[in-house]
Amino acid sequence: MDDISAVESKTRAKPPSRLDRLCALFDEHDADAALLSSPSDVRWACGFTGSNGLLLVREGGVAHFITDGRYQQQAAREVEGAEVHVTRGELIDYVAEQELLQGGERVLFQSGRVTVARLEEWKEKAEQVEWNAVSGLMNDLVAKKDESEIDKLIAAQRLTEDVFEHVTSSGWRGRTERDLAAEIVYEHLRRGADRMAFDPIVAGGGNGALPHARATDRRLQQGDLVVVDIGGVVDGYASDMTRVVAVGEPGEEVRAVHAVVRRAQEAAIEAARPGMESQALDAVARDVIEAAGYGEEFPHGLGHGLGLRTHEWPSVSYRRDYTLPEGAALTIEPGVYLPGRFGVRIEDTVVLREDGAENLTQAPREIVVC
Amino acid sequence: MDDISAVESKTRAKPPSRLDRLCALFDEHDADAALLSSPSDVRWACGFTGSNGLLLVREGGVAHFITDGRYQQQAAREVEGAEVHVTRGELIDYVAEQELLQGGERVLFQSGRVTVARLEEWKEKAEQVEWNAVSGLMNDLVAKKDESEIDKLIAAQRLTEDVFEHVTSSGWRGRTERDLAAEIVYEHLRRGADRMAFDPIVAGGGNGALPHARATDRRLQQGDLVVVDIGGVVDGYASDMTRVVAVGEPGEEVRAVHAVVRRAQEAAIEAARPGMESQALDAVARDVIEAAGYGEEFPHGLGHGLGLRTHEWPSVSYRRDYTLPEGAALTIEPGVYLPGRFGVRIEDTVVLREDGAENLTQAPREIVVC
Repeated sequence: MDDISAVESKTRAKPPSRLDRLCALFDEHDADAALLSSPSDVRWACGFTGSNGLLLVREGGVAHFITDGRYQQQAAREVEGAEVHVTRGELIDYVAEQELLQGGERVLFQSGRVTVARLEEWKEKAEQVEWNAVSGLMNDLVAKKDESEIDKLIAAQRLTEDVFEHVTSSGWRGRTERDLAAEIVYEHLRRGADRMAFDPIVAGGGNGALPHARATDRRLQQGDLVVVDIGGVVDGYASDMTRVVAVGEPGEEVRAVHAVVRRAQEAAIEAARPGMESQALDAVARDVIEAAGYGEEFPHGLGHGLGLRTHEWPSVSYRRDYTLPEGAALTIEPGVYLPGRFGVRIEDTVVLREDGAENLTQAPREIVVC
Repeated sequence: MDDISAVESKTRAKPPSRLDRLCALFDEHDADAALLSSPSDVRWACGFTGSNGLLLVREGGVAHFITDGRYQQQAAREVEGAEVHVTRGELIDYVAEQELLQGGERVLFQSGRVTVARLEEWKEKAEQVEWNAVSGLMNDLVAKKDESEIDKLIAAQRLTEDVFEHVTSSGWRGRTERDLAAEIVYEHLRRGADRMAFDPIVAGGGNGALPHARATDRRLQQGDLVVVDIGGVVDGYASDMTRVVAVGEPGEEVRAVHAVVRRAQEAAIEAARPGMESQALDAVARDVIEAAGYGEEFPHGLGHGLGLRTHEWPSVSYRRDYTLPEGAALTIEPGVYLPGRFGVRIEDTVVLREDGAENLTQAPREIVVC
C-alpha cells in the first residue's frame, strides 16, 4: 500500500463516534462546544496519553487539540479526530489568540475536573465565552465501554491474575507486607503494566480489618489472614482485584466469614444487569451479609466503575442512586472487617451485558493457603 | 511516666506554628477561617495522611478535622492541633449540620485545589458562608521547609541514591528500559519508600531526547546514553534525581554535551539563594547552555519546588517570575536534547539557606558507565 492510500485508509478507519456522542450532548445542555482538560477525558475522546492537553470540540464534531512542545511528536502519533496545535505558551492563551472558540460561544466543561482557579483563568482569557458547568458531563459516555476497551480491561485483569498466581506460589510466613507489595508491583511492571492502578494493599491479621490499610513492615505469621487488593494499568485501563490469603490452614471462623462474603459477592454478580439501580445492587450483597449478622462490619459501598480511571462513575453503594448503564465495567467487592482480628474482601470486575454481568475475573474465589 | 503525664507532654509538644502561620494570612485576605481539602495541604497542616478529610481552621487557631469512618483510628493517631470528627455522610454536610462554620463567615479556600463542582456543593450546603477563593494561598507556607521536613527530603534522596547505585552496579547492555524501571521501583519499595514520586524515566538513545519519555521495551545497546530520572516518597516527602548512564564508554559529543549541562547546573546551584527571582535563576543555567550553542535544545524550565508534592510552587522557569523564599526545596535540572540521538539532564535537589543553596543530592554528576 503506498503512503497516500495509507493516509486515506487511516482517515476512513477513524472512529468518529466518541466525538459525535459528545456533541450529541450539546443541545441538552444548551451549548455549542465543549472543552476537555482532564487527561483521562482527553484520552477517551481523542487518544492522547500525555499529561498536558486541551481538547476543544465544536458542533459538527470539529475538534482542536492543543498541547505544549514536549508532546509534539507524541500528539502527532496519538491524536485522532482532532487538529493538533502545539504552543510554547499557556494552552488557553493559544485557544484565545487563535480564536478557536470564536465569538459568543456557550462552552461545556466538566466541573468535577476543573479547579476554581483554572476556570477563573479561562474566563479571563476568553471573555466572550459563556462557560457552562456540568458535573459528570461525560459519566454516561465513559461508563459505556466498547469492545476494544473491554479487551484492555481483560488484558489488565489477566496480568494481575498472573502476578497473584506468581506471588502466591511460594510461602508467605515470615515475609513482610511491604516486601510482598514491592514484589507485586515489580511483577506488574516487568510483565508490561504501564503503572499500578493504586498502591497495592497487602494487609495481614488486624491490619486486614482496616478497609484502607497500607502495607506495613509487619512479618506475616502462622494463622494470619491477608487481604490482597491489587491492580495494574495496561494500555491505560485498570484492573482491580481482591483475594484473601491464609498463612497456614484457616480456622473455622475465617472460613465462615469468607463463605458469607463469597455468597454476597456471587449474589450481586448474579443479580447485576443494565437498567438496575445501583443502590438495589448494593442491597443484594448487603442483605446477605446483614442476614448473616455482619451488617455493621461491611462499612463501605459494594463497588465502583473501572476504566481509564480506577474509580469512575458510577459508584455502587447505599449512599447515592444511579441507573447502571449497559457496557459499564464495575467492581463487585463486599467485605467484612472484624476490628483487631481479620478482614475478608472478595473483588471481581464485571461488565454489564444486555442479559446480565460478564465476569472479567477468572481467579478462583477460594482462600489461597500460602 | 503515667498516662496523664504522657497526654500532657504530648499536648505541650504539639507544634502550633503551622496553624498559626495559616491564621496569620486571614487578615490579608479579609477572612476569619480557612477550609483545606487537598490531602497534601491537610497533611501539612495537621499530619493526617489519608485521602479523605477536611480541615477547618478558625481565627485563633481553633481547628476541626472531619473524616469518614474508614479513617477513624488513623485520624485519632495522626491528627495534631485539631479536634477530630468522624461522619458516615458527606464531610461538608457534617460541617454544616454541626455549625462548625457558624454564621456569616468569610472562609478562605485554595482555588487551585478545589473543583468548580465541589465549590458549588460547599455553597449549597453552607449558604451563609462567603467563600473567598485564593489561588496558591499556602504556596509560601508550604515552600518554607522546617528541619524535620528537610530531614525527610534527605531520607528520600538517600534512598533514591542507594537504589541508583544498586541498579548501576551491573551491566545494562541487552536489558530493556522497562525492566530497569521495574527494578528501580522494586528497590525503592523494598527499601521503605511509601510509593514512587512519579513513574521512573529510563530513556535510552533517541528516547532520551524526549523530555517526557516513558520506559519502553527497547533493549539498550552499546553506545546508548540513558537518561534516568527517578524519585520515591519517604514519610510523605519526595525525592527527584536525574543522572545519565552510558552503555559502554561514551563518545566525544556525549561528553561535551554532558560537560555543558553540568556547568549550567553547577552555576545555577552556586547562584541560588533566597530572595532571588526564579527567572533570574533559570537564566543562570540557560545562559551557559545558550553560550555553548544549545539554547534551542533546552526547551523546559530549570526546576520546581519539591516536598509533600513532587511538583510544588515555585516553578523555576523562564515563564513566570517568583521570589524564591528561604527554606524552599528546589530541583535544579537543566537538560539538552538532540532529537533522534540522545539527551542529557542532570538534576539535584537543593534547599535555600540564608547564605546560599545546600545541595541534598550526593550522587556524583559524572556519566555512569554500565
